[in-house]
Amino acid sequence: MQLLKERILKDGTVKPGNVLKVDSFLNHQIDIQLLNEIGKEFKRRFADCPITKILTIEASGIGIACIAAQYFDNVPVVFAKKTQSINLDGEMYSTKIESFTHKKVYDVILAKKFLTAEDHVLVIDDFLANGCAMLGLLDIVKKSGAALEGAGIVIEKGFQQGGKLIRDMGVRLESLAIIDSMTDDSLTFRE
Amino acid sequence: MQLLKERILKDGTVKPGNVLKVDSFLNHQIDIQLLNEIGKEFKRRFADCPITKILTIEASGIGIACIAAQYFDNVPVVFAKKTQSINLDGEMYSTKIESFTHKKVYDVILAKKFLTAEDHVLVIDDFLANGCAMLGLLDIVKKSGAALEGAGIVIEKGFQQGGKLIRDMGVRLESLAIIDSMTDDSLTFRE
Repeated sequence: MQLLKERILKDGTVKPGNVLKVDSFLNHQIDIQLLNEIGKEFKRRFADCPITKILTIEASGIGIACIAAQYFDNVPVVFAKKTQSINLDGEMYSTKIESFTHKKVYDVILAKKFLTAEDHVLVIDDFLANGCAMLGLLDIVKKSGAALEGAGIVIEKGFQQGGKLIRDMGVRLESLAIIDSMTDDSLTFRE
Repeated sequence: MQLLKERILKDGTVKPGNVLKVDSFLNHQIDIQLLNEIGKEFKRRFADCPITKILTIEASGIGIACIAAQYFDNVPVVFAKKTQSINLDGEMYSTKIESFTHKKVYDVILAKKFLTAEDHVLVIDDFLANGCAMLGLLDIVKKSGAALEGAGIVIEKGFQQGGKLIRDMGVRLESLAIIDSMTDDSLTFRE
């Protein structure tokens, strides 16, 4: 997605440890016009899918999913919640996600009543890097029995393993910008 | 806001400890059409304010703020982040918020570059109860020097202190539904 790539080049900054900061438009401050263009692009790529629900994970996925849902006939958005101590009461799907950024393992939960075998799910998130968050979300979809229609990612770090892992599982993964390499003063996108 | 009140009566459930669960449409699963009506109503109530930025806090405020921003000429949304251990580096506003739900004190941070003295801010959140989260957000606005235009809340628990606290500070607070009392089988809204 050309507009997104241009924005990453213009406003993204690279920090030590392969960190790409896009906090001025995607995950701290949010550019609503850009999010609308991202939503339209997800719709274009998944136009043939009978999506009934969009699944994401807190926090930075939520805004993207809500704006995108407007282009999918206003289907409901559900977001998985991160927690570190829960009493599982049988009404929740749960899975574990390791966060390298925060060096923690989270329990991630979703109320069972909001994702069922009748659903056709599109999973949306802001970043895909090592794939831990996405694998957790896919685990929840699997547990629910819902049909996984695909996964939409805004920025994929193509030099980390997540994209290959997810595609090798047979998931239809669409990333709007894939970064193949990144240094302090250059970014290379996959064609 | 009539549509919202009807929805709360229809789909909200009361749990022990004065907990109102609206997770089927507001803060776990999200009804995008309802969020659009909420966004329009915030615009109607703050139509005379020269809003340049909407401030909220993760996680459940984000979707509401992003959809609402579309009715305020697509102004940027910024969301404050909850964290329990941070290295303050001088580039962040920070404040402390006590969460009664989670029985923790969070550090809440916002990058200074995303809220400045030039901004006219509308603060948006899903719930107002004891007011801790809102007081934290107002503290961040004060530190930034931005002009506080007002605060928009989806559901205010009118029987807790937050609303009175915030209004007594002189803040223009608009709550779309104010609940004055709540039992297992009845809800009373303020007129």
